[in-house]
Amino acid sequence: MAIVVQKFGGSSVANPERIQRVARRVVETKAAGNQVVVIVSAMGDSTDDLIDLARQITDKPKAREMDMLLATGEQVSIALLAMAIDKLGHSVLSLTGPQVGILTEHVHGKAKILDVNPERLRLELDAGNIVIVAGFQGATETGEITTLGRGGSDTTAVAVAAALKADVCEIFTDVDGVYTTDPRVVSNARKLNRITYDEMLELASLGAQVLHPRSVEVGKEYNVPIHVRSSFNYNPGTIVQEVVDEVEKDMMVRGVAYDLNVAKIGLFDVPDKPGVARTLFKALAERRVNVDMIIQSAMRDDKNDIAFTVGKDDLELAVEVVKEVNEAIGAGGLTYDADLAKVSIVGAGMVSRPGVAAMMFEALADEGINIDMIATSEIKVSCVVSASEAKRAVQAIHKAFELEGDVAANDEGFKAG
Amino acid sequence: MAIVVQKFGGSSVANPERIQRVARRVVETKAAGNQVVVIVSAMGDSTDDLIDLARQITDKPKAREMDMLLATGEQVSIALLAMAIDKLGHSVLSLTGPQVGILTEHVHGKAKILDVNPERLRLELDAGNIVIVAGFQGATETGEITTLGRGGSDTTAVAVAAALKADVCEIFTDVDGVYTTDPRVVSNARKLNRITYDEMLELASLGAQVLHPRSVEVGKEYNVPIHVRSSFNYNPGTIVQEVVDEVEKDMMVRGVAYDLNVAKIGLFDVPDKPGVARTLFKALAERRVNVDMIIQSAMRDDKNDIAFTVGKDDLELAVEVVKEVNEAIGAGGLTYDADLAKVSIVGAGMVSRPGVAAMMFEALADEGINIDMIATSEIKVSCVVSASEAKRAVQAIHKAFELEGDVAANDEGFKAG
Repeated sequence: MAIVVQKFGGSSVANPERIQRVARRVVETKAAGNQVVVIVSAMGDSTDDLIDLARQITDKPKAREMDMLLATGEQVSIALLAMAIDKLGHSVLSLTGPQVGILTEHVHGKAKILDVNPERLRLELDAGNIVIVAGFQGATETGEITTLGRGGSDTTAVAVAAALKADVCEIFTDVDGVYTTDPRVVSNARKLNRITYDEMLELASLGAQVLHPRSVEVGKEYNVPIHVRSSFNYNPGTIVQEVVDEVEKDMMVRGVAYDLNVAKIGLFDVPDKPGVARTLFKALAERRVNVDMIIQSAMRDDKNDIAFTVGKDDLELAVEVVKEVNEAIGAGGLTYDADLAKVSIVGAGMVSRPGVAAMMFEALADEGINIDMIATSEIKVSCVVSASEAKRAVQAIHKAFELEGDVAANDEGFKAG
Repeated sequence: MAIVVQKFGGSSVANPERIQRVARRVVETKAAGNQVVVIVSAMGDSTDDLIDLARQITDKPKAREMDMLLATGEQVSIALLAMAIDKLGHSVLSLTGPQVGILTEHVHGKAKILDVNPERLRLELDAGNIVIVAGFQGATETGEITTLGRGGSDTTAVAVAAALKADVCEIFTDVDGVYTTDPRVVSNARKLNRITYDEMLELASLGAQVLHPRSVEVGKEYNVPIHVRSSFNYNPGTIVQEVVDEVEKDMMVRGVAYDLNVAKIGLFDVPDKPGVARTLFKALAERRVNVDMIIQSAMRDDKNDIAFTVGKDDLELAVEVVKEVNEAIGAGGLTYDADLAKVSIVGAGMVSRPGVAAMMFEALADEGINIDMIATSEIKVSCVVSASEAKRAVQAIHKAFELEGDVAANDEGFKAG
């Protein structure tokens, strides 16, 4: 009997009607002869509503109490989904993250999953139950309730699939799969049938909000096939796995991603001594600021400028830290900009093709878009541009790499997972 | 250092503003040199909102999933109250029922508390923290989330106070204390300064919705002084304890209670054989129907009629059970009535005064109110009447026993707890 893990996001369970629709889909999978574990997020905007409530109390809620508060959102969804499945006549029970045994590090607001205990899940599956698990949450070794940060339910799903050695982890979303870029920005963006973990990781990290990056990492680590598909239809979606089709592999650039959640901080006239960068980024790491791109440029012999990007949410904290570091190391001051975006191309085939980056820069130059920062890896090139120019940048790049296509043609020969 | 346990109900934490007011009151108690544990209910109508949500999914939600759902209500309040207290600069943390170690029996919807582990609470109090505990909820030995039923937060508060050997358990409510009857029904009802556990138990069981009966039982068992007081002012309330003042003890009848949640079921022509009543009430107990009053009358030599009352919520289930029993024992059929009320007088002094019951019946007769059932104990007399006549019955009885008074006079010589 195959084990299928299914994850439904907040919009799929936004109201009782949608919850009943999810219930029917889950029951179909069970009736097809699978053991089914379902991970759900909080209903629609309920997490935002809870955050609003907290903000009415205080501007700076403690992260521990925020986790206590937000964890209730998923607990509501799992109970309601279990009720809906029970009504359809199937054995079912819901479990919170702590009840499943989703062990996380002792960090509030964005804890990492350390381990998932499959024992309780196996017990319930073997007893014939459909098991509904609260996404986004876990508990520390001492029983403190933690949350994994936005998008954490994806990670819960893949981690649960890994722990159970599930046959597939299906991530249901409101789009048909992973596209060459955001179809809201480029209307004829093309759906990809298969994509590697590394490519997906770059796309996910770069702002394609289909899958949470951490979930792809976990998928890669435990080799969990992830099927990103629509909750509105039965079309095959995109399979994220280690090896892709030969035809698709041939594509130099697989997708164009963009991320509007980019803020840049620059630190001027940093003394050119060993250990300065370590001091800065260690201080940021200790305050748990996620730094993305880092650029250091030697302007003169004895002084450097260092620039880096963070998510907008982290900007205030990052500025605070950088001010302290500026004092401590005797740098020349700082600057920051919150109205930026990152546009990136991703593709495993890129490494063997020279001139890919140049094509991207040319596409931007032709549109008169200025590039603020550049970063490259083996399978991606990212450019930071002004937020107001991001959409135009994506369209230009998508066109330059001839990624347009039509989904139907692309689906030929693809078998449903 | 005294340990004070404070309980605030749903209306006291109905919105962020009220939560901040509760936070100030808690902080005052802490600043006065006490160790403070606070038990809170779910915000305002949030429990009803959750129930509505469940009803949109199914008419018969499973009790286990209902507990999973409802437990979120208190978890939201504790997080928000902890945030509000943190904002006032005091060390604080919130704990769910399972986190505290509130162990309950494995029954969903109305579980009894079996034990409260004081270890974690002591640790946090000794570390200087104010501790906020979710009322109404606990966990079984296997970690299943349970709820204690409506009003269960009172029980959580008294059980926590008992486990900590607290100096007082303060139950904050929207009235100044326990009155001779509901002031909404009799405007010049009088506040009682002190009352015994037994009297309070009868009043609580009889529908004076100030304290949950189970909480009074726990208070009596562990001799926890319970101070019922207003969350809107600093007036002394009513102390529930073992011995009351001499003056008040002299009062034959302490209060008049009423309960509109009364349904009656009658079973006709029950064969007059040993074990028949046992069969009926065992079947009801097994389905966890709470039976209140029971009356059996021998009408003829070989057949009896049995009548009993239950809460309206239990009526449907009780009728189902009685139908089965009717078949099994060959009785003559059943009848039921959901539009009833119970009106009762309570007083420890009653036992030594003859004619008290007669005075009550006379008061009702003078008003032309028909009595459907009568039940008496050492410290109470209860009459079931038509629901539409309940209010008039309470007014007549309150007057007949001359319970009217003025709160100010009654407070003379009373010292704040």
